[in-house]
Order: sequence, then C-alpha cells, then structure tokens
Amino acid sequence: MTDCQGDVEAENSPMELYKKLAELGDKVRTLKTAKAEQAEVDAAVRLLLKLKMDYKQKTGQDYKAGCPPSENGPVADDGNEEDDVNPWTVTTSNAKGVDYDKLIVRFGSSKVDQQLVDRIEKVSGQKPHHFIRRGIFFSHRDMHTVLDAYEKKKSFFLYTGRGPSSQAMHVGHLIPFMFTKWLQDVFDVPLVVQLTDDEKYLWKDLTLEQCHQFAVENAKDIIACGFDINKTFIFSDLEYMGASPEFYRNVVKVQKHVTFNQVKGIFGFTDSDCIGKISFPAIQAAPSFSNSFPHVFGDKKDIQCLIPCAIDQDPYFRMTRDVAPRIGYPKPALLHSTFFPALQGAQTKMSASDANSSIFLTDTAKQIKNKINKYAFSGGKDTVEEHRQYGGNVDVDVSFMYLSFFLEDDEQLEKIRQDYTSGALLTGELKKILIDTLQPLIVGHQERRKQITDETVKRFMTPRPLNFKL
Amino acid sequence: MTDCQGDVEAENSPMELYKKLAELGDKVRTLKTAKAEQAEVDAAVRLLLKLKMDYKQKTGQDYKAGCPPSENGPVADDGNEEDDVNPWTVTTSNAKGVDYDKLIVRFGSSKVDQQLVDRIEKVSGQKPHHFIRRGIFFSHRDMHTVLDAYEKKKSFFLYTGRGPSSQAMHVGHLIPFMFTKWLQDVFDVPLVVQLTDDEKYLWKDLTLEQCHQFAVENAKDIIACGFDINKTFIFSDLEYMGASPEFYRNVVKVQKHVTFNQVKGIFGFTDSDCIGKISFPAIQAAPSFSNSFPHVFGDKKDIQCLIPCAIDQDPYFRMTRDVAPRIGYPKPALLHSTFFPALQGAQTKMSASDANSSIFLTDTAKQIKNKINKYAFSGGKDTVEEHRQYGGNVDVDVSFMYLSFFLEDDEQLEKIRQDYTSGALLTGELKKILIDTLQPLIVGHQERRKQITDETVKRFMTPRPLNFKL
Repeated sequence: MTDCQGDVEAENSPMELYKKLAELGDKVRTLKTAKAEQAEVDAAVRLLLKLKMDYKQKTGQDYKAGCPPSENGPVADDGNEEDDVNPWTVTTSNAKGVDYDKLIVRFGSSKVDQQLVDRIEKVSGQKPHHFIRRGIFFSHRDMHTVLDAYEKKKSFFLYTGRGPSSQAMHVGHLIPFMFTKWLQDVFDVPLVVQLTDDEKYLWKDLTLEQCHQFAVENAKDIIACGFDINKTFIFSDLEYMGASPEFYRNVVKVQKHVTFNQVKGIFGFTDSDCIGKISFPAIQAAPSFSNSFPHVFGDKKDIQCLIPCAIDQDPYFRMTRDVAPRIGYPKPALLHSTFFPALQGAQTKMSASDANSSIFLTDTAKQIKNKINKYAFSGGKDTVEEHRQYGGNVDVDVSFMYLSFFLEDDEQLEKIRQDYTSGALLTGELKKILIDTLQPLIVGHQERRKQITDETVKRFMTPRPLNFKL
Repeated sequence: MTDCQGDVEAENSPMELYKKLAELGDKVRTLKTAKAEQAEVDAAVRLLLKLKMDYKQKTGQDYKAGCPPSENGPVADDGNEEDDVNPWTVTTSNAKGVDYDKLIVRFGSSKVDQQLVDRIEKVSGQKPHHFIRRGIFFSHRDMHTVLDAYEKKKSFFLYTGRGPSSQAMHVGHLIPFMFTKWLQDVFDVPLVVQLTDDEKYLWKDLTLEQCHQFAVENAKDIIACGFDINKTFIFSDLEYMGASPEFYRNVVKVQKHVTFNQVKGIFGFTDSDCIGKISFPAIQAAPSFSNSFPHVFGDKKDIQCLIPCAIDQDPYFRMTRDVAPRIGYPKPALLHSTFFPALQGAQTKMSASDANSSIFLTDTAKQIKNKINKYAFSGGKDTVEEHRQYGGNVDVDVSFMYLSFFLEDDEQLEKIRQDYTSGALLTGELKKILIDTLQPLIVGHQERRKQITDETVKRFMTPRPLNFKL
C-alpha cells in the first residue's frame, strides 16, 4: 500500500482522492485488525476524515466505498456508460462489477434463468453446479437446443481454452475448468481444450518458445482440475496446427468467410494491427467444429459443440456462429461466466501480470493469507463501531465475491451474507473464512499438480481416439 | 473469330473498332495463307480499308497493329501510364508488353546485365540458360550475394511455386519450372515447390477439395519437367501446414511482423477482403526460410534461399525480405522472369480460364496448330505485298515471342528475327516454325507426364530428407 500522508494538500483529481480514500480505508481496517498502536490508528482516522471532506468539497458527493466519483454530480446507479468487455479488456466504472444483465442485451445472448437451471438438473440427473445455481454462469446461447438433443440421445462435445500468457495461473483461471469438469462428469462427454500459444505470441512481447512452454505448464494446471484422460484432448495451436490438416482446413474455411470489416467491428482491430491478430479469430473458431478433430470424431462434421467460457470470449463465438451455417456446420452453443474480480475490486478482471491483484495457484498458504488481508477490497465500514451499526456491503466486498465462487455450501454462504450485511460479521472475520476456504483448495491443487508427470501431459496432448458414446 | 461484316456501320467505340480491325487483319492473313477464294479475300480487304478510314475519322489516329487507341490523341510511345503488375493482375496498354525496365526501377530490383550473365557462366561452369541469355529472367535481387557465397562453398536452396487454380496448366506455366530445373542441375541444390491450394480456395469460387486435387494434378506436370526426386520436395499448403509445426511457426512469425497497413500498401487489399487473403502473404513468405523444412535442413535457419519466379510475385518477396532480418533470417534472393504473353498479344498474361488465350499442356498437336494459326497475334502486314515491302514487327508478334521462349538455338532465332523484319519470312511461315517447335515439346511433356504414377507424386510430396551438400 502506498503511504499517502505526504501530499494530501496537493491538487488531487476526484479519482485520485477516491483511490487514496479507498487505500486509507483499507489501511485503517488493517491497523485495527492488527491491533496497531492507538496513536497510529488515530492519525490514520483523522487523515481519513480530512480526505473525506476534501472529497465532498471537490465532487459535491459523499465518499462511498466502491463508488468512484462521477464526472457529473452524484453517481447514477443506472448510468448509461457502457462497460468495456472484449477478449483483451474488461473494465467498468461500477464497483459491483460489470452489469451482466445489460451485457446479455448488448450481446444478444440469453439469461440462465431458473427454468434452465431446473432443466439442467432434470436432464443431467444431478444437482446443478453452484456456478449455475448462483448465476456465475449467467448467460447462454442455445443451451435448450443442446438439452433437447441430449434428451433424444444425441450427445455433444465440450470445447474450452486458455491463452497461456504466463506460467502463473490464478484462481480465476480455474473457474471455466472447474465448471467444464463438472459438465464432462455429469453429461459424460468428450472435451477439447485449446491452448492459444500462437495468440499470446501475436499479442505479447514473448517468443514462440516461451508461449509454447507456458502452454505445457498451463496444461498441468488444467489436468490437475481432474479431467478424465480418456475423454479429454488438450492441444497447443503451435503443435496441433502442424499435426492436423483437418484443423487447418477449418481455419481457412472460416478465414474465407470473415472480412476485415467484420473483425474490425467485432474486435476493434485497426489497420495498424498485424495480420496475425486480424486472422487469429478463425483459429479460435475452428475447434467449434467436430471434424477439426478427426482422431476423435472421424469425419463427422455435425456433432454439437458446447463452449463454457467467460463472457469476454463471446465475440469470437458470435463470429463463429455467424460463419458456421455458411460453411455447413452447426453453430456452437455457449455458457458464459461472469468475471472473477481482482483483489482490488470488481472493476476489472484479475491480471496475471500483477502479482498483487491475484491469488496464484503457486501461492503458499502464507501468501494467500497475506494477500487477502492486505489487498482484498472490503465492503466493510471504516471502524468496528460503524460496521456493527450499519453493516457491510457484500455487493462490493471482494472476499465475499470470492466465497461465492469457492464456498460450495449455499446455506453457509447465505448466513455469511446476512451476518456481514447486518454487521455481525466483521471484515477480518470474513477474510478469515475466505482464507480457510482458499488455502486447502489451493494446497490440494498443488498436490494434484505435483503428481502430473511430463508423460501424463504428453498423453493428454497427443491426438488420439477418445472414449465416449455419441 | 467473330464475323464483323454485319454491323460496321453501327456506332463502335474506338476500342471496339480497334479490336475488329485486329481481328480482320488476322482474318485477311489467314485467308491468304489458306489460299482462299480471291473474291472472299478481296471482300475482307475492302472491309479492312473501310474500317481503317472509320478508325481514323473517329480517333484522329492511323490504325497501327498492336497499338490500341489512346484517349487523348495519338499514342505516345513513352507514355507515363504505369503498367499494372501484381500477383492477380498484369495489364499494360503497350502491345510490346510490360515495360520491364520501368518495373525494375519501380520495384527497386536490379537488372540481369551481361556481367551477371557472365558470372553465372563462370560460377556454374555452364553456358547460361537461354532464359538468362535473352533477358527472359531479366531482374534479380541479391544474385551476386548468392554467387559470392557459392564460390566460397556455401550453397543455397531453391524455392518456387504455383497456385493450382485449375487442372490445366499452359506453356507459360512451364517457364519458371524449366528454369528452376536448370538451376537445380547446374548448381546441384535442393528445391522446395509450394502449391498454394489454400490461396486458390481463398481467391476463387472453388472447394478445398477441388483446390487440393488441382495441386496434386499440377504436381504431375511439375514433376514432368524432370526434377531430381532426391533433391526436390513438392508440397501443398493444405497438406504441409498440417504436417509441420515448424512451417506454421514461421507463418506466425511473419504474421506478427506485418500489419494490415503494409499488406494494403503492397497488395491493395481492402477492408472488404476476407481475413484469409489478408494473412495469406505470410504463407507464401514462410518457405523462404530453411527451418520451415526440418526434414530437409534440420534446425538450420540461415541457409540462403533463391526464388525464381515471374515478376508479378515480387510483392510477396519484397514483404518477405523486409520481415526476414527482423525475425533473424536471411533475406531470400530472387530471379524474376517477364510474363508469357497470351496468344492475343502481350498486353496481358495468359489466362488458364480462357482456353483460346493459351496453349495448354493437354492440347493435341492439331489443337496447337489451329490455335497458333487462328489466334496468335501477328506483327505482319495485312497483305503479302505490304509484308514483303515493309517487313513484320517482331516486337508485337506473339509467334516470335513464343519462339524466343522455346527455340533454344540463338542463331536460328536471330535469323528468324531478321527475315521476318525484312519481310523475307511471312507470318504463315513464322507460325509454322512455332508449331514445329511447340508440338514436339508438348508431346514430350505429355509422354513424361503419363509415366508419372500416383506413387511418384506421393514420394515427391512426402516430407523427407533430401540429398545434397551445403
């Protein structure tokens, strides 16, 4: 945390003041939790009050944790400002995170409503995963079509992926894989996992060798999620493109049916972008078509694909669904998840490049504890007294958000929500619950990952027949 | 030939009149050669004279065979109009064909001058191929560098290619392959031949299967040119991309280092072009780098590449040479040929889609004879008397141009030039020499092609080590 006592008198912009207030609020809570010297706490609280006054004077608004200053008077809750959501940027000015209902309207997808949740339970014969129950996978395309066919004994295959931009995956990266594993288990279907090492080479300042190495390392973390080796094919683009003429043929088919105008509109590419970026969307599209994997599906080109992914990947698949019928293939169906928030708040996605924004799968139990205590943005009040009186705000509290991802017990989660909102549960106590939830989860992951040999990775990544009924 | 006696009075544009005059000139010559009824010849000559008067009245210019009407008064021989030369279009308004000296200046390449011809003779120890002696391979990039290295026992590899847009190749398509075979023989070097079936799928209204089938058929014609199976690898993009991660890696490397702005400038792509076209240049670039062929060159990435090709392919390799040093590879050297003219004249390249513009490798001896007699644009005068008096013009005469490609004997060719120019040799006689030259050449090709089994094609197209010293 930066020490902001030095220059509070200087000309701060409303946003700078807001950030300092947020940091200072965290600091006060940390000091109190750590039972710091009373004088130190008092000094911090005095500064906090002064900053709050400065803030009100400058913006005409009361400082409210989690609500950044608006340009024109008080923040309107129904602000028309659009969240920026695409495969490379996710930003919103709202501390609650992206407005997902608006996104459904903008993207033209459908809400995962109670009817669909119930139907998944009925068709799979299993209690739906808590990601579905809690609206973490909140949006879909054509899930009813998938379930209709499944009921008529026509199965499907799963396709998901990861861009291997570094060796370090964080807990947020596990979300689609945890959910995909559940889908694989309950529907008993094959899965293909694309590692877009070519994409990362095109977008990042990395060598091909680095990107490919990251792909192999990431494959270990993916395998550690528990996928069935008899039903799962993991591939790196840099390897598989050179191992399957059928995959390349589908890439070229898509490339023929998408213009620069279209990718400009969908992805915001410009004339200064390299031609690799411009044509890459076809490479992410191609695994949606079953005949890209002849070792798995033979020459069958009509097997339905279901893609579980974060909503920021939807532009790729809107494009894919547009092209599919024109090249004689079925449109892939989708299940979209919300974003996993950074420790600092739900305005952005976690970033693998900022060590303090994320809990990494390689973090020790101690690092997990420290990061959560130090950085997890709190929806609590500034003092215990205020918190007891007014309660905390779970809608902006990152620890609570993380628990909604990782604490499976619905009743326990609901009790935490109520207690924190009422003020019965303090921020430190909430953080402790998260720490106790995440530590064993990550230690368990690390232990499973350690067991995965290079030989196992190689088997998962070898094109080969998979074992399933269609 | 169309019969244009019916509607000469109608309102013809200058260009329509010009075309009718050219056709009628051919007809008059044909009638005379065929010793037609005198009345028929007279009628044609009268019509010719009338059309010439119409033409002069309409354009203010005298009709001159091989010089189409200009918009603004008489055609200036040194017109500043630029020839249009790119991989998809070659057009010029000059009947002598493209102005190749200007092209050298515009493209920034170097002329194949006598010094280079002599050096090739000295280094190879062989009399240079007549394509080099006669300026058919007229332009180059870095040939002296290639020869410097070769003298120091550092060898190179050859790379050429073909876009398989149809099963039917014509004689013009043989030019780069005949010359490449000569280079392979005299320098004893390996050769890779790229068949861009993916490109043809992207540009033409063809299926992937059709393009790939054309590639395999074209490979037979290429093999029939006599390439050494121990030193030659022929590959189809649709096959080899899916068989070599190393090739794809080089494609992606090039794609990362070329922007849309650049390919727009080089190839004239627009926002409405499909993303496949936009990124394709990287696929034609990649074989310039030796490590795209690990079965041949292992992981050596610094083996010099020499590309013999028609000058219209130069834009691809200007781009490649720009990228090469930025990705740590040597720039490919080039030897550029002129275009092989259509039977109708040197204004355009031959087109495989117009059966009457070309002599095909599948044409019978009789078809060859008929096409040359009927369509080969003549630089001769309209009557035997005029021809004897004024002589013919070899600069626009397509039969003479073809002989300069296919008649190896320099002295014989020079004698033909002199005799035709003086009027001693008539158009019919010139055409007969061409027919007698092309018929055995094509029959020989057909016989060699017949011997080529699917097994042989498969061997040439299988990634494998080649036999050579570097």
